[in-house]
Amino acid sequence: MQKKRKLGRGVAVVGVGMSKFGMFKDKDSKDHFVEAFREMTASIDKGVDPNDIDALYLGNFSNDFFTHQAHWGPIVADIIGHVPKPATRTEGACASSALAFREGVFAIASGFYDIVLVGGLEVMSMRSTEEVAEGLALATIPYEGKAAFTFPGVFGATATAYFDRYQANREHLFNVTIKSHSNARLNPRAQYRASIREIMDSKIDRARKKGMEVPTWADEKEFLRDPAANPVVAWPMHLFDCCPISDGASCALLVGEELAKDFTDDPLHVIGIGQGSGRGLHAKEDLTTFEATRFAAQEAYGMAGIGPTEIQLAEVHDCFSIAEIVHIEDLGFFKPGEGYKAVEEGRTRLDGPKPINTSGGLKCKGHPVGATGVAQIVEIWEQLRGEAGERQVAGGDLRVGATHNLGGTGGTCTFTILERR
Amino acid sequence: MQKKRKLGRGVAVVGVGMSKFGMFKDKDSKDHFVEAFREMTASIDKGVDPNDIDALYLGNFSNDFFTHQAHWGPIVADIIGHVPKPATRTEGACASSALAFREGVFAIASGFYDIVLVGGLEVMSMRSTEEVAEGLALATIPYEGKAAFTFPGVFGATATAYFDRYQANREHLFNVTIKSHSNARLNPRAQYRASIREIMDSKIDRARKKGMEVPTWADEKEFLRDPAANPVVAWPMHLFDCCPISDGASCALLVGEELAKDFTDDPLHVIGIGQGSGRGLHAKEDLTTFEATRFAAQEAYGMAGIGPTEIQLAEVHDCFSIAEIVHIEDLGFFKPGEGYKAVEEGRTRLDGPKPINTSGGLKCKGHPVGATGVAQIVEIWEQLRGEAGERQVAGGDLRVGATHNLGGTGGTCTFTILERR
Repeated sequence: MQKKRKLGRGVAVVGVGMSKFGMFKDKDSKDHFVEAFREMTASIDKGVDPNDIDALYLGNFSNDFFTHQAHWGPIVADIIGHVPKPATRTEGACASSALAFREGVFAIASGFYDIVLVGGLEVMSMRSTEEVAEGLALATIPYEGKAAFTFPGVFGATATAYFDRYQANREHLFNVTIKSHSNARLNPRAQYRASIREIMDSKIDRARKKGMEVPTWADEKEFLRDPAANPVVAWPMHLFDCCPISDGASCALLVGEELAKDFTDDPLHVIGIGQGSGRGLHAKEDLTTFEATRFAAQEAYGMAGIGPTEIQLAEVHDCFSIAEIVHIEDLGFFKPGEGYKAVEEGRTRLDGPKPINTSGGLKCKGHPVGATGVAQIVEIWEQLRGEAGERQVAGGDLRVGATHNLGGTGGTCTFTILERR
Repeated sequence: MQKKRKLGRGVAVVGVGMSKFGMFKDKDSKDHFVEAFREMTASIDKGVDPNDIDALYLGNFSNDFFTHQAHWGPIVADIIGHVPKPATRTEGACASSALAFREGVFAIASGFYDIVLVGGLEVMSMRSTEEVAEGLALATIPYEGKAAFTFPGVFGATATAYFDRYQANREHLFNVTIKSHSNARLNPRAQYRASIREIMDSKIDRARKKGMEVPTWADEKEFLRDPAANPVVAWPMHLFDCCPISDGASCALLVGEELAKDFTDDPLHVIGIGQGSGRGLHAKEDLTTFEATRFAAQEAYGMAGIGPTEIQLAEVHDCFSIAEIVHIEDLGFFKPGEGYKAVEEGRTRLDGPKPINTSGGLKCKGHPVGATGVAQIVEIWEQLRGEAGERQVAGGDLRVGATHNLGGTGGTCTFTILERR
C-alpha cells in the first residue's frame, strides 16, 4: 500500500501554451519555445509580467543527441529574458516535461517560489528516420537496446502478449488509430489533421489523377489492413499504429493556489500528482501492464482522494496504438482485458462517456518527446475551460481531467489530475 | 533585490557516499553508483532501510553522449531496488547533481515525500580526450561552441580578463594548483593523490632511471613554469590549471528535518539553497565575474540569514584554477580583485582562515561532471562532522560549510549552505 501523500501548499495552473507540432525545416528549438511561451502569456486572462516568474523547469529528452546541444535550461532562460533566475532541465525520456511540471509543483509547494514556468521541447526532424530511431533507443533500458528491441519492437511485443491473453487482435488497434485521426482533424496545432477517411480519399484522388490503379477500400479498416497503405514496422505494429517524428514545445505557468486569482478567475488546481519507475521488458512478469503507470496512478489518486471513475477525460500516452489500450486499463479506467472493447464500443471517443486523447494524442497531435507531457496539460486546460473549439467535449459539467505520460519503454511514468472549480 | 525565500519544511542531510573518482576501464556507471550508495547507507549512524526511500533524483550531464544511454533515473532505480518508486534525472551540465540535491530538498519541503535519495554520476573515460572535449562542448552556450570556445578557451579568456583588470598573472594561478594537489593527497577518494613536489620528484626519479637529462626545477613554481612539464592548453590555461577526465558517482540521503534523529544524532541542516542562470561569454559585460554565481549566492545567503563571513569552509567549482579565484570573489568570500591575493597569502589553505576545496577540488579530487555537485556535499559532511581524516580542518568549532557548483561556462550555478547544530 502506498502512503497517502499531500502537498503543504496547493498549486494551480493559470496559463498554458504550445507551438504547432510538426516537422519544420525552418524553426529551431528556440523558435518553438518562443511560440509556446507567447501563447502561454496570451492565455493568462489577467496577464502576467514575465519578470515575476521565479524559476523555470524545462523537460528535454535528448537534444544532446538530436541537435548536439545539451544544457537547455539557461538557453531557454536567455531567450525569454529570465536570466539570472534559475533554469533546470529534467529528463525522463518521453516523460521529460511531465517531470518538469512535477518539479514546478514541488518548488511552489515547498514555499520557496510562487510563480514557476514549466515546459518542454524537442526538435527531431533534422535527423533522418534511422537517426531518430537511434536517438530514441537511448531511452530504452540497456538490455532492450542491445537486443535490438527499439520502441516499435517493445510495443509490438506488448501487443502480441495482449492479443494472446485477451483474444484481441490487430483489428482492435484500428479503432484507436481511427479515433486519434478523427480527433486530431479538429485540433489546429496537431501534426496530422486528416481523418483516415480523408487520407483514403486523397490517395484515391491522387491515383485517379496519375492514371494509376484506383484503390477500392470499402472502409477505414480495409485501408488499414492493406499492407501497401499501412506497412508493417514491428509486427503487429504498422505505420498507422506509430506516432510520428515531431518538433515542438509546450509550457504552463504554475502559481501558489492562493495567488491564482491574480492571474485568472478560472485556474486549474493540481489535485493529484504521481510518478513511478519501471524496469524494462527483460524484467517484466506480465507484458500487458506497466508497473510505473500503476504506481503513478495510485499515488495521484491517493493524493486527490478520487478514483478513475471521477476522471472525466484524459490524455493518455499513446506512442503506439497498443499503449493507449494497455494504459487505460492500468489507469483503472477499464478493467484488464476490457480496454480494447471499450475503444471498440466508442466509449473513449470525443462523444463517449470517457474521452481519451481528444487532442489526437501522440499519434496525430505529434510527439516532440520532451514537449509532450506539458502539451497534454494544454489539452486538459482547453477542455476543462471549454476552450477546445471544434473538439470540445460536450456535456457542460467538465471538472476533472488527467494526463498520463510515459518515458522510455515504461522506465518513467507520471499521472497528473487537474480540477476546475 | 531578491526576495527572501524560505522553505515550508526544514530538510536535513543524514548520510552521504561517493565512489573513488578516477578513470576506470573495468567499471561502468552502475558500478560507480552502487559504490556510492553502499558508502551512503554505511554512513548513516542509525541505519536506513532502502525500502523507506520515497524518491530518487539523479544528476547526469550527458551519458547520452558519453555512454550512448540516456534515461538513467530508472536504470539507477533498478540497481538499488527502488522500482517502482519515482526516479528523476536532472541536467545542468557540470551542476547536474547539485540540481538533483535541490529538487530533493523541494520534494521534501513540499511535504510530499519524507526520505529522498539524491546523487549523480558520469562516466567519461571510455571516450578519447577529443571526444570528451566534444561532449563537454554540448554544455557551452551555442555561440561559444560555434566559435570554437570550448571550456579551456572560455576560462582562458576569463583569466586573461582577470589578469588585465587586477594586475594578476599566471604565477598566481600556481598557488591554486599547488593547494589543490596538497589537499588531494590527503583524500583517499581523490583521482590525483600526489603533491606537485611529489610529481616533480617522481619525474626526476624517472629521468634518472632512464638515463635522461635530469630536470633541475628549483621549486613547484618553476616546475609549473616549464612548458615541457606543464604545456599550454588554451592560454593562459595550462595542463595543471585544468581538471581531469573522470568517472564516478555520489549520493546523499535527505529527510524532513523532524525525522533526522531517526537516522543520526548528527545531521547537517540545509539552511540555504540558491540557483542562478547565466548567458555565456558573448553576453557578458564583465568577464571577471559570473552572474549566475552571484545570484545563487544571494538567494542562499538570503534564506540562511547569514553572509559570506559566516561560511567557515567551502567547496568551490574549480574546473580551472582561475574559476576558483573568480568564484571566491563572486561568493563574497573576498572582494573583487582580492581573490588571487587571498590564495597567495594562504588564506584558503587547509590551515588558513577560509579553507577552500579541502577535498582537492575538481582539479585533483576529479570531476565526473554529473557527480560533482553532490560529491561537494560529501566533503562538507565529512569536514563538519570531523570525519575528514588527515585533511580535517582544525579548530574544533566547525558549524557552517557551503558548496558552489557551476554548470557549463556559467549557464547554471548553485550555492548550498549546510549547518551542523
